[in-house]
Amino acid sequence: MYRQTVDLNCDMGEGFGHWSYGEATDAALMAVATSANVACGFHGGDPNIMDAAARLAAEHGVGLGAHPSYNDRQGFGRRAIAAKPEELVNDILYQVGALREFGRRHGVALQHVKPHGALYMTAAKDPELSRLIVDALRRTGPELFLYCMDISETCRIAQEAGQPVVREFYADRDYDASGSIVFARKVRAYDPSELADKCVRACRDGLVRTVEGEDIRVDFESICFHSDTPGALAIGQAIRAALTEAGVAIARPGAA
Amino acid sequence: MYRQTVDLNCDMGEGFGHWSYGEATDAALMAVATSANVACGFHGGDPNIMDAAARLAAEHGVGLGAHPSYNDRQGFGRRAIAAKPEELVNDILYQVGALREFGRRHGVALQHVKPHGALYMTAAKDPELSRLIVDALRRTGPELFLYCMDISETCRIAQEAGQPVVREFYADRDYDASGSIVFARKVRAYDPSELADKCVRACRDGLVRTVEGEDIRVDFESICFHSDTPGALAIGQAIRAALTEAGVAIARPGAA
Amino acid sequence: MYRQTVDLNCDMGEGFGHWSYGEATDAALMAVATSANVACGFHGGDPNIMDAAARLAAEHGVGLGAHPSYNDRQGFGRRAIAAKPEELVNDILYQVGALREFGRRHGVALQHVKPHGALYMTAAKDPELSRLIVDALRRTGPELFLYCMDISETCRIAQEAGQPVVREFYADRDYDASGSIVFARKVRAYDPSELADKCVRACRDGLVRTVEGEDIRVDFESICFHSDTPGALAIGQAIRAALTEAGVAIARPGAA
Amino acid sequence: MYRQTVDLNCDMGEGFGHWSYGEATDAALMAVATSANVACGFHGGDPNIMDAAARLAAEHGVGLGAHPSYNDRQGFGRRAIAAKPEELVNDILYQVGALREFGRRHGVALQHVKPHGALYMTAAKDPELSRLIVDALRRTGPELFLYCMDISETCRIAQEAGQPVVREFYADRDYDASGSIVFARKVRAYDPSELADKCVRACRDGLVRTVEGEDIRVDFESICFHSDTPGALAIGQAIRAALTEAGVAIARPGAA
Repeated sequence: MYRQTVDLNCDMGEGFGHWSYGEATDAALMAVATSANVACGFHGGDPNIMDAAARLAAEHGVGLGAHPSYNDRQGFGRRAIAAKPEELVNDILYQVGALREFGRRHGVALQHVKPHGALYMTAAKDPELSRLIVDALRRTGPELFLYCMDISETCRIAQEAGQPVVREFYADRDYDASGSIVFARKVRAYDPSELADKCVRACRDGLVRTVEGEDIRVDFESICFHSDTPGALAIGQAIRAALTEAGVAIARPGAA
Repeated sequence: MYRQTVDLNCDMGEGFGHWSYGEATDAALMAVATSANVACGFHGGDPNIMDAAARLAAEHGVGLGAHPSYNDRQGFGRRAIAAKPEELVNDILYQVGALREFGRRHGVALQHVKPHGALYMTAAKDPELSRLIVDALRRTGPELFLYCMDISETCRIAQEAGQPVVREFYADRDYDASGSIVFARKVRAYDPSELADKCVRACRDGLVRTVEGEDIRVDFESICFHSDTPGALAIGQAIRAALTEAGVAIARPGAA
Repeated sequence: MYRQTVDLNCDMGEGFGHWSYGEATDAALMAVATSANVACGFHGGDPNIMDAAARLAAEHGVGLGAHPSYNDRQGFGRRAIAAKPEELVNDILYQVGALREFGRRHGVALQHVKPHGALYMTAAKDPELSRLIVDALRRTGPELFLYCMDISETCRIAQEAGQPVVREFYADRDYDASGSIVFARKVRAYDPSELADKCVRACRDGLVRTVEGEDIRVDFESICFHSDTPGALAIGQAIRAALTEAGVAIARPGAA
Repeated sequence: MYRQTVDLNCDMGEGFGHWSYGEATDAALMAVATSANVACGFHGGDPNIMDAAARLAAEHGVGLGAHPSYNDRQGFGRRAIAAKPEELVNDILYQVGALREFGRRHGVALQHVKPHGALYMTAAKDPELSRLIVDALRRTGPELFLYCMDISETCRIAQEAGQPVVREFYADRDYDASGSIVFARKVRAYDPSELADKCVRACRDGLVRTVEGEDIRVDFESICFHSDTPGALAIGQAIRAALTEAGVAIARPGAA
């Protein structure tokens, strides 16, 4: 078996003000996921939502992660901004620190950082930006897991620098032959059991079927599902049940 | 003599994006002040400015303080928002954490928190808000100095709870008979030597002349001057020179 | 009968970016209401949503109205900001003009202006602010209906100045003995038929039962229901059906 | 002589809240320019500043133009956002309408639209975006001049569609051999008399020297100088004096 233990991470806290986002509450998702990527106000989330998410993470023993974004609330962080890499790193530190403070309030140490949306994809391909992100984390949080794709520049540079990484397998995103996920501003609907099977296969064999129809190898320590995917909660529950059934333990990174 | 040692604090980092604020640069002010109240993005400041301010504080050995505000960039934090106290505390934690992260990057521990503008004045009179602020700091930063006015609810409640306070004497604000500063959205011009004399007198005798023309007692550990007061740098330099001349040491809180 | 004809107005376009708001789509609400109060970006709404709302208003022959707010997206415009009245009027004109441009694109002249949330309530009690709003509209839109409460300063001052007003009866808000609606940041759930009966009674007799349990007289030309009240669409449909059944025509202001 | 009459346009109103921008006040610049490109809140400007700018335009008889931007206040509109063209057009209409309303208040019809910064440069090269902008203006303002570069897609498409254009000659930007201006996030300092000579030559001969050192032909109806170029007011005054000396009339577009 490729993985005996896997982390299950999910984006949370992506409402804003009076607006909620996704069908499931953070409380429900916290009962399923082992790690939470919490929006930090730049694409979604606000201080009240972040405070609630940190409290829930404490209550559920879920790993608290910052999910920093481009400063693009209008576009939910899915539109790249042609900012200088050093500006983006400052945006990231600002958001990471903000969430960390709420964790401190609720007695939870920050576990990880995972850039959101377009920023995640930009960093994956941009060695300069990835280098600056990693350099900053080396100083402010050398213990923080940096969530990333296995094939990304972010992963390669973090590993070289000694920053701990958690590589992700995306349950509810499609892969192409390059091993990259297919980025979409709108996500399609999925059948939970289909995604659960996909995750079990990835854990058992380390393989995933691409949109082109071939199997490719995937390397990961965490499975990601998104709270804004239609049926997110059912997807998370199906993955959890199927993995457990298949004998794969679900635990926070570093726990096994 | 009332005070042998006093802290000298100044608001900094209050530009935003391409806009600068005040006549003096943060670098120049850091050479004069011992504690910096750094804007955290809600009334002024942005991640790039905060990063630069934290770096300057490290270089100058200046105490790094968060200067959180109402979420009112348009009004520079001088307009109260009818938010619930718990919302305001979340806004404060968000800003404090963001600045703290930049301090961490540059090897500077956060020294203090000082609410800005209308939020400072609201908290001074509002025991519920002050209580919630102090409760939050007890959890996230029991070592952080809370800057406040001697006569404020903020001060009273922090002292009762055991949160360390630094009471401020405002060099460039007028006092009224109640011992409160006269809040103004626009500040008048001052003569630096007049303000320096006012500070020396306050340190020597613990007295200040009110707008009504009488002397009142003031209790403080820090002198505040604002970077947006016309001639701020000259004011800070005049205060520093006059205090030194009068035998008052200028040092960060807790240093004496 | 007190009113043979009445307008039926509803707040719309109160999503933001990827977030939607209320259970019903604007398209569904446009089929029920005769006048739409469209959020203009300060509490909800954004350029894309406003464009869509103006297009829908054109398609449905619904009166297009601007629904300007305090600059408080975080609090959905339900938190007053201590801004100067002239600042608030500038905020209003900014929002009104923005929506008017989308109306122009879709061939719809702006019909009305209705301040949102806390701004509506502030203006209702503040003669200086109401005066400045009315003065501004006299210059930029002397033909625009100003939606307001009968007993408000806004109404009194607009009528004196010759600005056309539409006085509102709130279907889904409670009245107190003063004739004012009871402002709430969270709204309770209502039974559609109960609200429909309340509207029929108001049109037939010009009376409403207060929270204190007595009847008071109400004067109005329009019935308002809110898109964020639970069951909004069913409420609007029930009101429309009951009024039609009772022989009250539903039409845009000035149409009868 | 290539041009007997020329418009002189300048960016204005680019402060925000308590922050001012550029060395010269809008009032001083209005005495020099014949057309004002007024920031509309997305990169600079706010409702109060826009109101003041529209009033000044009325007082000085200066042509009032909207200067819409990417939604990027942090980066002063100099950072492109990967938004869909239809989103950008909605952003533009929102800003144009907002300014138009202030013009209406002060009795000034909107004269022109000129996208700002990165949006201007993006549109110049993007036929789809330029097409959508022109299509929108055909509906909301077929009389509005669209300011653009001669060689841009914006210009070509507007001319084909019958939207009136004003082509610009940039006094304080450098040209390259392609006839495009060299975009820079930071602008260098210039000698006013050098720029004045450059403008006189452009009006007399229709030529400009490129950064590569060769002359190229320029076609334009307006000369642009920026309020944030160091010495902007002196530059504008020098251009005005030199043109007058050279017998070139300075007047709003369509006036000659």
